[in-house]
Amino acid sequence: MSSHHIVRDDQEPALIIANGAACNPELLGQLLEWSPLVIVLDSAIDRVMELDIKVDVLLGDFDREFDPEKYKTSQYPLEIVHAPAQDQTDLEKAFDFLIEKGHKAVNVVWATGRRMDHTLHNLTIAALYQDLLKIVFFDDHSKAFLLPKKFQKWYSKDTILSLIPIGTVENIVTQNLFYPLQNEKLQLGYRTGSSNHVAEDGIVTIEFDKGDLMLMECFD
Amino acid sequence: MSSHHIVRDDQEPALIIANGAACNPELLGQLLEWSPLVIVLDSAIDRVMELDIKVDVLLGDFDREFDPEKYKTSQYPLEIVHAPAQDQTDLEKAFDFLIEKGHKAVNVVWATGRRMDHTLHNLTIAALYQDLLKIVFFDDHSKAFLLPKKFQKWYSKDTILSLIPIGTVENIVTQNLFYPLQNEKLQLGYRTGSSNHVAEDGIVTIEFDKGDLMLMECFD
Repeated sequence: MSSHHIVRDDQEPALIIANGAACNPELLGQLLEWSPLVIVLDSAIDRVMELDIKVDVLLGDFDREFDPEKYKTSQYPLEIVHAPAQDQTDLEKAFDFLIEKGHKAVNVVWATGRRMDHTLHNLTIAALYQDLLKIVFFDDHSKAFLLPKKFQKWYSKDTILSLIPIGTVENIVTQNLFYPLQNEKLQLGYRTGSSNHVAEDGIVTIEFDKGDLMLMECFD
Repeated sequence: MSSHHIVRDDQEPALIIANGAACNPELLGQLLEWSPLVIVLDSAIDRVMELDIKVDVLLGDFDREFDPEKYKTSQYPLEIVHAPAQDQTDLEKAFDFLIEKGHKAVNVVWATGRRMDHTLHNLTIAALYQDLLKIVFFDDHSKAFLLPKKFQKWYSKDTILSLIPIGTVENIVTQNLFYPLQNEKLQLGYRTGSSNHVAEDGIVTIEFDKGDLMLMECFD
């Protein structure tokens, strides 16, 4: 059984394995290695068990006659968190669980793919939590996170960067993108900044003053 | 080579095969059978060729040294549409092509999965076209389309229906959903109507008066 217990620094992001399509095992392995706490949502546990991964927390509403007890021995020690509320998704409950435990950051895998409604809800609900938890989504083709009002990071030339507004985002100004935005508005459903890319090796700057803007680093 | 040429009624929706993850071949086969016109985006053509499908139109910006000519013989007759504009995605160009040809409806497959930015942009850009083209997205777990201001359809009990606002949608009223909405607001990033379901066999009614609301019929 592979172990993620080498490093136990709570400054590192926790990891949530959600309910969508599985990612490449190599990506999952990289994320597991640095994670101080691994939470799996109930609907994913059987697929996780097949990968021989040790998790710390099993969380969900445990509906459809789900029996969490049967994982207790093979995953010992395993914290079982029964979260029956039906007005939140299991992913939101996992975010709440981490916030309550004092975590400041989380990586999320398996949040995309399979059901479209889960994909859209999972990625966008990050907006609701942005002041409480730094959330980064990973899948085999993408890394996504909400931007602060001013964002700066070094990227190599031609890196694909997509600016996806969660709703409407106003007064966006970018530097070092191939298709620059100069005080422009993006609105989901009408105009996004999908498939932009980095103009030159160096710092990319993205600023805006209203709304929720997600950056996606993507690769084919 | 499977053929979709049995029925050629232009009242039926056209079909676009987009740039995301492939769906189940059975779903693709069902959609092909009724489609009067099949468009494939350039980035998907090699995967489509492997499935031995006859298409009518190959459309895209043909970047990355893509050579459309090499598909002409095996796909004869094939209309090649070079659409180089960089301010639209190839999917949007395919919608424009259909509108120009007088089509009123289109089914879209392979629009989800793989890159997150494509998935979000592909699904939501339907809002921009809603007055011109009835767009329905299909994948192995979902069927999605934008709702008119008043929507009514018969569903069987427990069908999963997710209401996903593209931005903010106000004054939503539903009938025959398990979690009814009574003059409520949904906002992407904060509150969606994900994973609702049908209360009883019968007509489901969804009304709203502002915004763009997508309905997703989903199954695990």
